[in-house]
Amino acid sequence: MYTLYYSPGAASMLPHLLLIEAQAPYELRPVDLAAGGQRDPEYLKLNPNGVVPTLLVNEAPYYEAAALAQLIAENHPEAALAPPLGTARRATYLQWMTHLANTLQPAYRLWFYPGDAGAVDPDAVKAAARQKIETIWERIDALLSDGRAYFVGDGPTALDFYALMLMRWSRNMPRPATEWPHLKAFAERMKARPSWKTLYEREGLTEWA
Amino acid sequence: MYTLYYSPGAASMLPHLLLIEAQAPYELRPVDLAAGGQRDPEYLKLNPNGVVPTLLVNEAPYYEAAALAQLIAENHPEAALAPPLGTARRATYLQWMTHLANTLQPAYRLWFYPGDAGAVDPDAVKAAARQKIETIWERIDALLSDGRAYFVGDGPTALDFYALMLMRWSRNMPRPATEWPHLKAFAERMKARPSWKTLYEREGLTEWA
Ligand SMILES: N[C@@H](CCC(=O)N[C@@H](CS)C(=O)NCC(=O)O)C(=O)O
Ligand SMILES: N[C@@H](CCC(=O)N[C@@H](CS)C(=O)NCC(=O)O)C(=O)O
Repeated sequence: MYTLYYSPGAASMLPHLLLIEAQAPYELRPVDLAAGGQRDPEYLKLNPNGVVPTLLVNEAPYYEAAALAQLIAENHPEAALAPPLGTARRATYLQWMTHLANTLQPAYRLWFYPGDAGAVDPDAVKAAARQKIETIWERIDALLSDGRAYFVGDGPTALDFYALMLMRWSRNMPRPATEWPHLKAFAERMKARPSWKTLYEREGLTEWA
Repeated sequence: MYTLYYSPGAASMLPHLLLIEAQAPYELRPVDLAAGGQRDPEYLKLNPNGVVPTLLVNEAPYYEAAALAQLIAENHPEAALAPPLGTARRATYLQWMTHLANTLQPAYRLWFYPGDAGAVDPDAVKAAARQKIETIWERIDALLSDGRAYFVGDGPTALDFYALMLMRWSRNMPRPATEWPHLKAFAERMKARPSWKTLYEREGLTEWA
């Protein structure tokens, strides 16, 4: 049994999509980021970083969206949300999961929270973050240009949902990820899945449907 | 068979330690960062990010130090470098692997390459990075204060080697990670392993032995 602390459209969207895809039973608990709910002392006991998501697994709290996605995939092998261990697809999956977590997501963090880089000109930080984000989208678009439907294999893995969430975060940026043709087709394919509609209903989302 | 592109003491140290621990056969290929070898066109074909490490696995190139560590652990289960799937230890392992990759390592990147944050005052970027790094060491020190020898379980996993490498990177910072008592004991325990000595010999390292 899972309990997901979330905010609509935030990084919690990734484990949420995976829970839906895995058809796992879960409860949702909203965290009001605008009201500072992520810094509530009770919440900080679950997640000392003061961010969403946090996932309770059998009452024990865990954080980091990308880790939670991998965990849900591992706990529900029947949903085939991660490649089997020991395959070449697995190596590619691990590379890209880590690359998104180590470079693309931190660049978004600087785009949305330029103050994380210190007491410096936020516009200069955002410009550098934007350039990094676009370089990575450029490269992923090239990867998808060989006709593959998903990053690895015949069906979507945690990695595809991670990329989809990060694409969505670019929707109000100067150059949204959907301006790259293969990324656009990829997003349409992913958004056609029933899990996307369920996510939007449960989180009350409207933009970028 | 593995081939590791490395630079002494760089992020390549993590997969290198894992290869040694797993007793896997591998070849080393140096990349001269000072001379810009990481931006050589032939190298960029293997790793478009222009950084080390890159690992060839059966001739195919993969990047991202944390992903390579996980991959080596998975490919050599007899070395017990990752907790078994489906255990609570596994969830903790995934959380911390991702946390180090998503927050601590990017903060180090800003400390060492403040220009990544744009055309802004590098000292202000470094000050913010330093604060983030110290906050995370503080928290890990508290985690280790319950007497555990390793992050999860009775033996070291990829996660412990990852933390050790990142601790080493703080050695010339204003507050090195070894100034926290449980982190200091942890580093001594990890550095007493034969793999550390082998790593130092093969990479020609001397500092922080
Ligand atoms: N590394 C974390 C980052 C999560 C994160 O940045 N969450 C944002 C929303 S997308 C948040 O909670 N922000 C609130 C704040 O920073 O105060 C993860 O991937 O889970
Ligand atoms: N995300 C990469 C980052 C690797 C990285 O930053 N490597 C540094 C050395 S520790 C590097 O190659 N720097 C050369 C440069 O940026 O030009 C990983 O973890 O593998």
